[in-house]
Amino acid sequence: MTNDQQTPFIGAQVFIQPGQTRADIERWFRLLRDSNMTACRIRMHEEHLHRPDGSWDFSLYDYAFEMAEKYDISVFATLFPYEKAVWPMTKYPLSKENLDEIRYYIQTVVSHYSDSTALYCWVLQNEPGSYGAYPHSDLSDALKAEWIDAQPAASYLSHGYVQQQAFEEQRFQRYYTSWFLAWIASEVRKLDPKHELHTNPYEIFANAAEYDFVAWRNFLTIFGASCHPAHHFGDFPRRQFSLALSMNCEMLRAGAGKLPFMVTELQGGNNTYSADVPMCPTKEEIAQWLWTAVGAGAKGVIFWTLNPRAVGGEAGEWAMVNFQNKASDRLLAASSVAVALQENHKLLSAATPLESSIYLLYAKEAFWTEAKTAAGTDEKAEYEGRKTRSGIKSVIGWYGAVTDLGLSANVCEMAEFDWDSSDHSGRTIILSHQIAIGSTYWPKLRHFVTTGGKLIADGLTFFFDENDFSVMQTGFPLEDVFGASLEEVRTIAGDFSINIHDDPLALPAHLFKGTLSVSTASAIAADADGVLATRNSYGNGVAVWIPSMLGFGALRLGKSSLCAFLTAELGDSLTTAPIRFAQVQTDVTMRVMRSGSSLITIMVNKSSGPKKINLQFDRCALSPNVLYSNNASTIAGADFVILPEETIVIEWR
Amino acid sequence: MTNDQQTPFIGAQVFIQPGQTRADIERWFRLLRDSNMTACRIRMHEEHLHRPDGSWDFSLYDYAFEMAEKYDISVFATLFPYEKAVWPMTKYPLSKENLDEIRYYIQTVVSHYSDSTALYCWVLQNEPGSYGAYPHSDLSDALKAEWIDAQPAASYLSHGYVQQQAFEEQRFQRYYTSWFLAWIASEVRKLDPKHELHTNPYEIFANAAEYDFVAWRNFLTIFGASCHPAHHFGDFPRRQFSLALSMNCEMLRAGAGKLPFMVTELQGGNNTYSADVPMCPTKEEIAQWLWTAVGAGAKGVIFWTLNPRAVGGEAGEWAMVNFQNKASDRLLAASSVAVALQENHKLLSAATPLESSIYLLYAKEAFWTEAKTAAGTDEKAEYEGRKTRSGIKSVIGWYGAVTDLGLSANVCEMAEFDWDSSDHSGRTIILSHQIAIGSTYWPKLRHFVTTGGKLIADGLTFFFDENDFSVMQTGFPLEDVFGASLEEVRTIAGDFSINIHDDPLALPAHLFKGTLSVSTASAIAADADGVLATRNSYGNGVAVWIPSMLGFGALRLGKSSLCAFLTAELGDSLTTAPIRFAQVQTDVTMRVMRSGSSLITIMVNKSSGPKKINLQFDRCALSPNVLYSNNASTIAGADFVILPEETIVIEWR
Amino acid sequence: MTNDQQTPFIGAQVFIQPGQTRADIERWFRLLRDSNMTACRIRMHEEHLHRPDGSWDFSLYDYAFEMAEKYDISVFATLFPYEKAVWPMTKYPLSKENLDEIRYYIQTVVSHYSDSTALYCWVLQNEPGSYGAYPHSDLSDALKAEWIDAQPAASYLSHGYVQQQAFEEQRFQRYYTSWFLAWIASEVRKLDPKHELHTNPYEIFANAAEYDFVAWRNFLTIFGASCHPAHHFGDFPRRQFSLALSMNCEMLRAGAGKLPFMVTELQGGNNTYSADVPMCPTKEEIAQWLWTAVGAGAKGVIFWTLNPRAVGGEAGEWAMVNFQNKASDRLLAASSVAVALQENHKLLSAATPLESSIYLLYAKEAFWTEAKTAAGTDEKAEYEGRKTRSGIKSVIGWYGAVTDLGLSANVCEMAEFDWDSSDHSGRTIILSHQIAIGSTYWPKLRHFVTTGGKLIADGLTFFFDENDFSVMQTGFPLEDVFGASLEEVRTIAGDFSINIHDDPLALPAHLFKGTLSVSTASAIAADADGVLATRNSYGNGVAVWIPSMLGFGALRLGKSSLCAFLTAELGDSLTTAPIRFAQVQTDVTMRVMRSGSSLITIMVNKSSGPKKINLQFDRCALSPNVLYSNNASTIAGADFVILPEETIVIEWR
Repeated sequence: MTNDQQTPFIGAQVFIQPGQTRADIERWFRLLRDSNMTACRIRMHEEHLHRPDGSWDFSLYDYAFEMAEKYDISVFATLFPYEKAVWPMTKYPLSKENLDEIRYYIQTVVSHYSDSTALYCWVLQNEPGSYGAYPHSDLSDALKAEWIDAQPAASYLSHGYVQQQAFEEQRFQRYYTSWFLAWIASEVRKLDPKHELHTNPYEIFANAAEYDFVAWRNFLTIFGASCHPAHHFGDFPRRQFSLALSMNCEMLRAGAGKLPFMVTELQGGNNTYSADVPMCPTKEEIAQWLWTAVGAGAKGVIFWTLNPRAVGGEAGEWAMVNFQNKASDRLLAASSVAVALQENHKLLSAATPLESSIYLLYAKEAFWTEAKTAAGTDEKAEYEGRKTRSGIKSVIGWYGAVTDLGLSANVCEMAEFDWDSSDHSGRTIILSHQIAIGSTYWPKLRHFVTTGGKLIADGLTFFFDENDFSVMQTGFPLEDVFGASLEEVRTIAGDFSINIHDDPLALPAHLFKGTLSVSTASAIAADADGVLATRNSYGNGVAVWIPSMLGFGALRLGKSSLCAFLTAELGDSLTTAPIRFAQVQTDVTMRVMRSGSSLITIMVNKSSGPKKINLQFDRCALSPNVLYSNNASTIAGADFVILPEETIVIEWR
Repeated sequence: MTNDQQTPFIGAQVFIQPGQTRADIERWFRLLRDSNMTACRIRMHEEHLHRPDGSWDFSLYDYAFEMAEKYDISVFATLFPYEKAVWPMTKYPLSKENLDEIRYYIQTVVSHYSDSTALYCWVLQNEPGSYGAYPHSDLSDALKAEWIDAQPAASYLSHGYVQQQAFEEQRFQRYYTSWFLAWIASEVRKLDPKHELHTNPYEIFANAAEYDFVAWRNFLTIFGASCHPAHHFGDFPRRQFSLALSMNCEMLRAGAGKLPFMVTELQGGNNTYSADVPMCPTKEEIAQWLWTAVGAGAKGVIFWTLNPRAVGGEAGEWAMVNFQNKASDRLLAASSVAVALQENHKLLSAATPLESSIYLLYAKEAFWTEAKTAAGTDEKAEYEGRKTRSGIKSVIGWYGAVTDLGLSANVCEMAEFDWDSSDHSGRTIILSHQIAIGSTYWPKLRHFVTTGGKLIADGLTFFFDENDFSVMQTGFPLEDVFGASLEEVRTIAGDFSINIHDDPLALPAHLFKGTLSVSTASAIAADADGVLATRNSYGNGVAVWIPSMLGFGALRLGKSSLCAFLTAELGDSLTTAPIRFAQVQTDVTMRVMRSGSSLITIMVNKSSGPKKINLQFDRCALSPNVLYSNNASTIAGADFVILPEETIVIEWR
Repeated sequence: MTNDQQTPFIGAQVFIQPGQTRADIERWFRLLRDSNMTACRIRMHEEHLHRPDGSWDFSLYDYAFEMAEKYDISVFATLFPYEKAVWPMTKYPLSKENLDEIRYYIQTVVSHYSDSTALYCWVLQNEPGSYGAYPHSDLSDALKAEWIDAQPAASYLSHGYVQQQAFEEQRFQRYYTSWFLAWIASEVRKLDPKHELHTNPYEIFANAAEYDFVAWRNFLTIFGASCHPAHHFGDFPRRQFSLALSMNCEMLRAGAGKLPFMVTELQGGNNTYSADVPMCPTKEEIAQWLWTAVGAGAKGVIFWTLNPRAVGGEAGEWAMVNFQNKASDRLLAASSVAVALQENHKLLSAATPLESSIYLLYAKEAFWTEAKTAAGTDEKAEYEGRKTRSGIKSVIGWYGAVTDLGLSANVCEMAEFDWDSSDHSGRTIILSHQIAIGSTYWPKLRHFVTTGGKLIADGLTFFFDENDFSVMQTGFPLEDVFGASLEEVRTIAGDFSINIHDDPLALPAHLFKGTLSVSTASAIAADADGVLATRNSYGNGVAVWIPSMLGFGALRLGKSSLCAFLTAELGDSLTTAPIRFAQVQTDVTMRVMRSGSSLITIMVNKSSGPKKINLQFDRCALSPNVLYSNNASTIAGADFVILPEETIVIEWR
């Protein structure tokens, strides 16, 4: 029964388009079934369905749904009205009239398919997100006017330095994106009260600030993501694509809150002319990515695509079938993972990622401030850290260090963190080069430390507020919490080191070197320019400040020092982790899930040689039970070897 | 008598412009005569001739024609009406009204000069071709509507995957270019039934798809080309400019069919600010280029320019005279070649390039598909092969390998090949990374192999049809011919090797690695990914398929392996070549002509040291007679040394 | 008494903006006083003063003036009406109506503050200059029409090769810039007849051709400059920023003529996101720059900025105070220089830069011709010399060579040189790659040599006239003076050498290699291409011509050979210099002033190690008296050591 989708599941996009024969379509659905896949996505192209004379022709798509039913494949049906704007502005209506046309399309398509037993989920829109652009129209004008009227008067205007809040366009666009998705959801719900509702944000490392995930929880039932290494992971070298996927999933998991999330587009095939970083995934990567997504809590993964498009952009690319319509080695690899998922369905469906006490927070205001002030894409390498998205790259640096310890971290937008808890002890928040932090978060951060949390800040975090105001000029609002305030920033072309004095530890840093004026804090690093880092006890917590770009430095020059620093800072929350690496591991990523009394480790070796792993348990060592390996390693205990490109999944009990 | 121009001849552009004195003009024509040149080009600038008040002033140009008559110089007069559009769209009328203005200009100028005894040829337009752009106007709209009406209904629409043929704009532009040239020709012919008609396409490696040479044969009497290394040969290092010129000439020779062709612009002087690759030709290069053009069949060469322009773009650049109006070393070098041409006029005027049995074909559809899908100019080096013009660069790679064997190759657009022959045995067609091959050529290629031809394909040749449709998805239409079909393509950043198994031969390849699903063919290369190359006997012929970028790989990593592969594949057609290199030669280019019972070799050494040459004749060795050498080498037989930068021309009899 | 400003002085910009408290403002003025600064600049933002309802609110700025009076700080008040255009076109009115608005702003502000005892100077406009752009409007149209009417008929039209003078837009813009500044000055003068009038041209290496300094002498009372290494000195490596500043000052000093000049913006703090080359000046650089400016004759230096802006571009950047509003090490360094200036006020206020007999001339026409014909910013390094501003970079190469000898050079626009003197003996003019020299300067240059001057030309100097006409084609107008004319130019990718034969001297040269046709001159360098350099005695003087890019070559490959060449050419004018380096010094810059019978040397060591200095005096050696050193070197005589980054100022008497 397709509407009771077993999770975690694997599926693939079936790309339907005129020209295809019924035999083609049946072959693809049969192949899905034969490959142990239980779901597909189908793009419901209005241009295929809606004839120029106004009539509708559903025959091709009806046959696809028929085959989905026949082969017991759950359909994620993507609403895809005519695109009237130029990409990436296609994600918005072009006018009020166009909104009516879209409504008519939704009504027609939803009413036609809502009773299909194959239908599992409506994908409200493919890949919302638009790199900051939206089409200005009568619709957007009217909505913006309403939105402005509904805004409360600003209670904070940067001490009189600004007349109104900044980033109005950005804040409106974020609202408009949510508004339109909610509108589609409500149109679908008028006709179909029962199926799942979903969408798949993409290139989150660029578009995150446009996504108000907290608002989306009101109309989505499943969160999702498009994760295409060739398109979206350009900030990572290829051997870190699993790491990138892992972090991408964390961002979605945090966004989803209590709702499930799935990876509903994952690169399955080769690119030739499309994508910035063309590549063909290996069969090993397919397994790595699938298990990484599952380990990060994804309830399912849908590949892009089973069969290739035939004409235009992406024609003949991205497919998991070859040109003989047979399974590629990638599809076979996915199938064997699917078998393992199904064999261990009971264990895995109950599994959730091990909760982490580490929170890497990012701020939408930091994205916006960077986009306004940062240097262009042709900036020299020695000033790389002032290009856009340096904030999220700094987070990537820290995320990599955390994973090298065998731990995981939550990656959340500021709004997604649970600020209201009355006891934050044991938790660590890291704010890495988030150059703008909204004023409403200042008291929340104070509360976090007061109630036992550890707060670590690096780079130019806190430099601006939400109004592009240089806050340090009128006194740092968290001076009490950090026991220090920013004294000066010196721009250093290239890289430099911060020497932490209680340790012979040289932390690589990049471009911006901040010094601190200390009140109650202890200096933990200093040189001729001044104090470079401080630690301050405040309430029941601790605040550590190193106003130089450490996360970015780790990306550029290596993570080992940052791992050592983190090991020291995490203290108890490291040693009480149920499981972790006994030694820092470079290029091995581990995700850990808990299912009942079992722990499940998912490990991928991305180094060029075999890696000795020694796992450290918080209590006594557990016993291994290999659930999946694509390299048949022998695992007798916590001490073993993982081969290059191997993915190994072990239940510990 | 100038209208009976002796060929091959050498000439130069005389740039006429107001400000020049009669003494200047006479000096230049006298210098042409004294330099053994017998032709010139003159640009008939409307802005010089047609006064703002509407009257015409021919005095300056009349004097130039008078001097041409006096010094017995044949004039190629270039029609040059006011340019009203922005470059490169200047190649088209701006409106119907503008077309009338152009007609009036043509009528006035042609009627004024058609009786000049110096006049030899009308150049209908300078450098047609526009990198894909044309000005949309009432004229183009009307012509396009007519053109669409005249198109037959498409008999092939990619199995229903498209609704209409693709590339309508590109096909119309190609038509429009031809239409306008034909219109000019007909306007000239109304007043002048007797003189030659000519035009000079330029930067053919970029603009080739715009030129419908087969159609041009209906109105031109002489084909031509602009060949400026500084502008047009940027895909080649400087030491390969002779090679580039040779291939450029091949493309024109194929386009011209039975008509003669000439190089009517060849860089003669230094660039400072103009041109992308500024340089000053050496006197040795002047000789190399002249002889290479002659060896490729050009009936004449006209340098750009004798005297420099005085104001604006190119002012003080490009000239063969120095600022004292005396001959530069380049002009002296050209003059000495002219002497050799004249001394051997009888032999050379009867000489034609030795026919080659190798055909390197390129497809206009491949250019268009690349232009639509390819990556921008800032693509990384590791993905270089997906930039535009990778198809023609792949052909360049093969062309270089052929010439390293001492052979030559025809380089033709698909439409220019003689498909209809009933016996193609002994012929080899190479389709190198021609990513789109029109469906009408599929049966022609089948016929070619059936009737004894050898067909070699590499790269993504055949990937698309003329509609941007990924043909392999519905079954490869030439699967019978190749005995195989494309299985998958894997994108490999950078380069890799194909190991041909019957030989310890590692062919360098780039970026795209294709595997094959084999039916009747024999696999000749394979690895863990699958079969990488096949050979199939079909009818009386053979089809070899290596769907990885070999031509491009040779360009990037060297041609020696491709030469070895080619030697093996050519077999008989190699050993029966009347003359070739006994060993592969790098950086020596040879052109061979036949004149009566003599063979004439034109050799250029572009390596930094002397090169030992050992010529291989198909029968017994012939005896040498040096017609030209700029380094006085002693040639006693088939085994000799050629010095760096030397050009040596030998008659073998 | 602030209106009798003691010179040379040091000050800083106080950036006033709403949001600041009175306590802030008083703190900054007190800090200026406590830092021994006696001047400030204040930007009189109309958007702060002029309310949307039309009323004016001066309270914040009144308080700033009050504090300036209280702490005895002279105010340079910068007129700053609303900017209605997009940068850089903000430097012009947008319309006639806008001009009226600006007049109203000026009237209001000037009448409000003209009686302030703190007011010292009106800065008419901040940073005139606009990289060639200005807004076309009813005002510019009307002015241009008037300007055209007022132009005399051209007496020279390039021998009939042009119909009208070229560069009309550029010539008009240059006029328009001067017109607008003069208009502002006259509006100020209507209400304030007494205060100084000033403006600060910026990025002079790019904008020089827009500045008609000779015309500005009619309305300014003090010349000025913005000199921000991070913005303006991108053509220099960081260790040459003192050198760049020195040359920048020379250009202003020449422009100012007999009027004083000041550096009224000098980078004082760190940049993060603003500026192309972000950096934080060190305290040593602050001292180096201050003393270099003083040594070049600046009567004062005002830093940008004391306090940072708070919002928007530059927020939190550029400041000399830290975020605690305390003095940075940079401000302390400036303060200690201020002390030295004040302690030696009598000596220094009477000091003037030692007159140099070397004149490096640049031509506005060369800038314009380059801008029209030069290659884009993405030109390859091997053709670097045909990018824009290669002329001024060539001058930079020569300027560096002159300073390596311990000498200085005047750097003037052609119009600023004193052509009319009847005796130029002992003077040397160097025209380095000034590709266009206006025809009016040809007789002036002839007169210069006739009356004893030495003229040295390199690169493509003289190639064009003021009309983009390639002058050599009709005969070089200074053929008599040089005894030679240009024969040919050969473009050489990358670099090459010119071997001067009377010396084993290989001068590095770049890109353009010119050969000469010799009449009366002596060839001093030649190779297979021809004569590469000549020397000609003419009248009482000498003309040396090396038509290859020597200045640019020195920039690319080092200055030592050019120093040797210069040493030989300067002859007497070198050995009679009152003071110079006995050996060529790399990376030590020296400025020399004369005050009464004393010489004052200002030396900066920019090498990474200590440098031995041996000074050569024209007569007997003088005795040292150290006025300032930031490294406490011991100086006993003409032979001493200067430490890395040290600035040392010595009076010799």
